[in-house]
Amino acid sequence: MSEKTLPCTEAQLRDIATRWPTPFHLYDEKAIRANARRMKAAFAWNKGFRNFFAVKAAPNPFLMRVLKDEGFGADCSSLPELLLSEKVGLDGEAIMFTSNDTPAEEFVHAVEMGANVNLDDISHIEFLEKACGKLPELVCFRYNPGPLKGGNAIIGKPEEAKYGFTREQLFEGYRLLKEKGVKRFGLHTMVASNELNPQYFIDTAILLFDLIAELHAELGITFEFVNLGGGIGIPYRPEQEGVNLEIVGEGIRKAYEERLIGKGHPELKIYLECGRCITGPYGYLVSTVRHLKHTYRDYVGMDACMANLMRPALYGAYHHITVVGKADAPADHIYDVTGSLCENNDKFAIQRALPEIVPGDLLVFHDAGAHGHAMGFNYNGKLRSAELLLREDGSVTEIRRAETIEDLFATLDFNKLAAF
Amino acid sequence: MSEKTLPCTEAQLRDIATRWPTPFHLYDEKAIRANARRMKAAFAWNKGFRNFFAVKAAPNPFLMRVLKDEGFGADCSSLPELLLSEKVGLDGEAIMFTSNDTPAEEFVHAVEMGANVNLDDISHIEFLEKACGKLPELVCFRYNPGPLKGGNAIIGKPEEAKYGFTREQLFEGYRLLKEKGVKRFGLHTMVASNELNPQYFIDTAILLFDLIAELHAELGITFEFVNLGGGIGIPYRPEQEGVNLEIVGEGIRKAYEERLIGKGHPELKIYLECGRCITGPYGYLVSTVRHLKHTYRDYVGMDACMANLMRPALYGAYHHITVVGKADAPADHIYDVTGSLCENNDKFAIQRALPEIVPGDLLVFHDAGAHGHAMGFNYNGKLRSAELLLREDGSVTEIRRAETIEDLFATLDFNKLAAF
Repeated sequence: MSEKTLPCTEAQLRDIATRWPTPFHLYDEKAIRANARRMKAAFAWNKGFRNFFAVKAAPNPFLMRVLKDEGFGADCSSLPELLLSEKVGLDGEAIMFTSNDTPAEEFVHAVEMGANVNLDDISHIEFLEKACGKLPELVCFRYNPGPLKGGNAIIGKPEEAKYGFTREQLFEGYRLLKEKGVKRFGLHTMVASNELNPQYFIDTAILLFDLIAELHAELGITFEFVNLGGGIGIPYRPEQEGVNLEIVGEGIRKAYEERLIGKGHPELKIYLECGRCITGPYGYLVSTVRHLKHTYRDYVGMDACMANLMRPALYGAYHHITVVGKADAPADHIYDVTGSLCENNDKFAIQRALPEIVPGDLLVFHDAGAHGHAMGFNYNGKLRSAELLLREDGSVTEIRRAETIEDLFATLDFNKLAAF
Repeated sequence: MSEKTLPCTEAQLRDIATRWPTPFHLYDEKAIRANARRMKAAFAWNKGFRNFFAVKAAPNPFLMRVLKDEGFGADCSSLPELLLSEKVGLDGEAIMFTSNDTPAEEFVHAVEMGANVNLDDISHIEFLEKACGKLPELVCFRYNPGPLKGGNAIIGKPEEAKYGFTREQLFEGYRLLKEKGVKRFGLHTMVASNELNPQYFIDTAILLFDLIAELHAELGITFEFVNLGGGIGIPYRPEQEGVNLEIVGEGIRKAYEERLIGKGHPELKIYLECGRCITGPYGYLVSTVRHLKHTYRDYVGMDACMANLMRPALYGAYHHITVVGKADAPADHIYDVTGSLCENNDKFAIQRALPEIVPGDLLVFHDAGAHGHAMGFNYNGKLRSAELLLREDGSVTEIRRAETIEDLFATLDFNKLAAF
């Protein structure tokens, strides 16, 4: 069971909604910090441990700054994400550059920043060398175990995924790096997304530890870090159980001791690149009920739409809903909770049991702190909403303003249109 | 069979790609105009016929201007779409405002513009009256036939769709309008999306014509127009056949004569609100191959990604691909054609037979002229690309510039971050 609570009192939330028009995303700084510390504690046994926050999950520099304070780095997969990290004051080996189908200029920028460069394909060795004039001192490869490791429902079968090197390519690739004088090595994989089974992450670590031991023995190269990827899920449904980070940390510690240290392998830094489980549960989409509609079903029409949170429409994903002020009312009404997009799948919930709702009610969509605002689009002329940070002292900082019509039309030249 | 051709010679296309960096969307003005004229001709028997271009399909004011020239109006479902129409010089009854879960300020703006206001729900009569002080002279209702009419795969079952009035609500609603002194009436439905069977549209017209006759007889109100909606599909696959507009036009004419005119009903304007079939086949996403990758499959990595065209990732939709310069080469290679987004479903095609591809090849994704650029997002820091119009004289006009990093960061306050 995971409890779905609000980050502040109902009175505070109503007050915030009078100061910023709904919809908006609200993030809970205190909970995000506590969560980051819990993860660090679970891996405190590893001196070099670091989580690189997957920027794509919540590309807000204020959230990234909070996480930087807590010792996190940034996992970037595009030039804009690298630039955002620079703005936050992250650079050098606080950056993991894990991209695929990478343009030359992004490799160049990542290398200039001194980032850990994680290559997705064996052909990128030569491409990177050509783009930068030489290879960086440290290179990491992304491993795709293919049929050797099952994926999960969201990421699919690894052998059908576009990412990473095959096992044979890893051996060939590291040999090539060694020949070319590269001295520092990393290994990475990421084969699941939103996975809730802690053993999955321990098994992935075992797979990589064994592979590192083999590569070390066969090629005589010493790895500096292993990046176990992200993919730690969150319990979107109240009846689900979150991943126990202590169990994951301890399981990985045991495997690390047994498979590497116990066999004489030198120390290795353990890296993760979690995004969803860091901010996801601590971000809330707050929206006001605009209309009720009764036809073949009963519909609740919100002032938010899939531009604010696309996961339900895209994946049929569940996001828990709290009706503010009605926590104790019986959930005896069945509603489709919709947005106003001219797209029938613009529904936050389908046939959901909720307390009776009236226009003006404030609804909170839980677990919107990752892949929420980040995936927003302007389809149908919808504007992306503001992001607010609830500070530890209870005050609120606007960390991204709402889009305006001017933003929406910024790439259009109306003078040219007049002459068209 | 639908032929998948390029809008210009390969040499012209390569030339355009030297003047604008790929990826970009290219629209064919000549073909769009010819297509609009063909639709008008198919309905020339109806004096008041008009297609209201569904702005959401391609919200570009230059394309809207071309369509305005051809006598089309605009089907809008949000305030930004209304504002865009104003910029194009469309207003009054050249606008169909078909929205759902509508905010009061959007109704007010639509009424101020003199737009045809199409209500989605019976409760909106009172809401509109309150928002505007009085009801407009002309009001239209959107009908949801529920189980009386089958939907299709994309829009789903009408009775599970959030849109429209039930049959009972229509009778109640028009009675209410009449009592409140409204004098001009319209009726609308839209129960399919991307449908290729011409009979579907004829059957929908019959459903509405019969309903209009019934409403006319029972309530004594005379309808000024019927809006048969959009939903006319396009043949994304070469082996599919496009909708024959002449068959649809003629079938609707016959039904109109039999069901209404032949029975003494006064003339009625026929409206459509097609978007996809107007610009869809005449928009092309042009992209360059960045990488080839060989692991468990062979991958072609493009400089475009799902931010440029989301339909394959979102719906598993097929978009035909032309490899420029290789029209005569055998399609004897099987590729997954991918973008660079850090999202495994960022694939334009899965296991597609294509000619052998090398980095630098120019690929054209067909039928990207609707719901292509329009659905783009900035996930992963991806920037939306430029839109170009191939003019009738063969020249090229940039009708939307590519997004920049500054656009992406426009809603962030980095000064505030410095003090954070």
